[in-house]
Amino acid sequence: MNSARQPIGVFDSGIGGLTVVKAIMENLPSESIVYFGDTARVPYGTKSKMTIVKFSLENVEFLLRFGVKCIVIACNTSSSWALPTLRKYFKVPIIGVIRPGAAAAVRQTKNKRVGVIGTNATIKSGAYDAAIQQLDPAIKVFTQSCPLFVPLVEEGWLGGDISRHVAQRYLQPLLRQRIDTLILGCTHYPLLASTIRQVMGPGVALVDSARQTAHEVRGVLVGADTISDSRRKPRYRFFVTDEPTQFNRIGHQFLGQAIGTVERVNGY
Amino acid sequence: MNSARQPIGVFDSGIGGLTVVKAIMENLPSESIVYFGDTARVPYGTKSKMTIVKFSLENVEFLLRFGVKCIVIACNTSSSWALPTLRKYFKVPIIGVIRPGAAAAVRQTKNKRVGVIGTNATIKSGAYDAAIQQLDPAIKVFTQSCPLFVPLVEEGWLGGDISRHVAQRYLQPLLRQRIDTLILGCTHYPLLASTIRQVMGPGVALVDSARQTAHEVRGVLVGADTISDSRRKPRYRFFVTDEPTQFNRIGHQFLGQAIGTVERVNGY
Repeated sequence: MNSARQPIGVFDSGIGGLTVVKAIMENLPSESIVYFGDTARVPYGTKSKMTIVKFSLENVEFLLRFGVKCIVIACNTSSSWALPTLRKYFKVPIIGVIRPGAAAAVRQTKNKRVGVIGTNATIKSGAYDAAIQQLDPAIKVFTQSCPLFVPLVEEGWLGGDISRHVAQRYLQPLLRQRIDTLILGCTHYPLLASTIRQVMGPGVALVDSARQTAHEVRGVLVGADTISDSRRKPRYRFFVTDEPTQFNRIGHQFLGQAIGTVERVNGY
Repeated sequence: MNSARQPIGVFDSGIGGLTVVKAIMENLPSESIVYFGDTARVPYGTKSKMTIVKFSLENVEFLLRFGVKCIVIACNTSSSWALPTLRKYFKVPIIGVIRPGAAAAVRQTKNKRVGVIGTNATIKSGAYDAAIQQLDPAIKVFTQSCPLFVPLVEEGWLGGDISRHVAQRYLQPLLRQRIDTLILGCTHYPLLASTIRQVMGPGVALVDSARQTAHEVRGVLVGADTISDSRRKPRYRFFVTDEPTQFNRIGHQFLGQAIGTVERVNGY
């Protein structure tokens, strides 16, 4: 098999990882993609490390059936807790969203005060703190979990009073720390960007890992000499573990275009 | 085996079913209980019927290993979608929370206008509507899903401005329908009762299925002649599919007492 023609595998706990797929489609338009969203067991961000690692191992095993040439963990929670274990078990290159997001924030900050928001599990893991400190130990990192942000996005309440009040409650402590850069450490959060920007003000840059992760994918493919040289139209396949209705209904908001066929996988 | 001494099995998607356990403990203090909370795959209320039925079948199979004499589905979502299938597959008596809650509301209402709130899946199932109409076809039923209520409770935001604004947004349409009775169709919602009462006003009675379900359990045991006559202290066992930390941390709020040992089950 010509490995350049093999697809890229992407997995997420649910639907949010489509923002990363969107960035890969834009940055690497010749690459085919297989997406796996674990919608039957979503969310991961409220679960323990043990459970997140177990689910992530199963997700990689699923993607490997398609002969993927690399795997992207689009989920911040899974990247935070499961990446080291996955790299130990599997030979295929695996890319998470934490280091790309951390690197973008390190480049962005002027006053070396960076905020990170994410799910309970992502924040508890300390993964962003560690990644930022490794790149620049002089940077101070302030973290805050925002458990209601994902349900707000899934309810479609992206603006309005309730979302702004919730954002104020979560973000007030970060505002007081005078951060100049805020990592949106969950794939759902970019949909709340305008509300978050209202609360944080124009002096705080918002960093979303998706685009940066797509750059890292390109780097890995170039390094392994497996980047696609095909002029054929790439193929996109989407698999989910629950019925695809909801995924189809709101997925285009994350992907920025219509999704097409979504297939349901049994056994999860 | 003396079937009167066999335990009662109770399952829920997570932690909320402990409110039903509490009611059974109060109403049937001689009965031993085995509780199973599927915390690795929680919530069910955002998932499809197919996935809810599959998970529910697995939960019953787990409880049957303990020789339970009856099974209580403490989860409204699972009761709504899975009860008929479970009764078809298993011989053990199975009790859901829908009919008891519906019966209590039918007895309560004076103006024959009843509201029901629940998860997306519970409301979509139409199970409460059907159960109420079967008991009294003259009653008008008004339903509303409240997807943010569970995350609010799990965040611990039971009162305050944000919870009240969310409750207003969801409950306003029911208020306009001049209901005099409101079924809290999810085990998490009783923890928001004072906020819900503020919004609905003193003229609306709130119905919580837990106590009524315990009465139905008593009826089933009496009917099958398997009610416990033991004077020995009952045994309570709690099993969850994710790590028990969170379950231990907030479980006592649902159970009304300390939980004791919680065991983790692998393979989910």
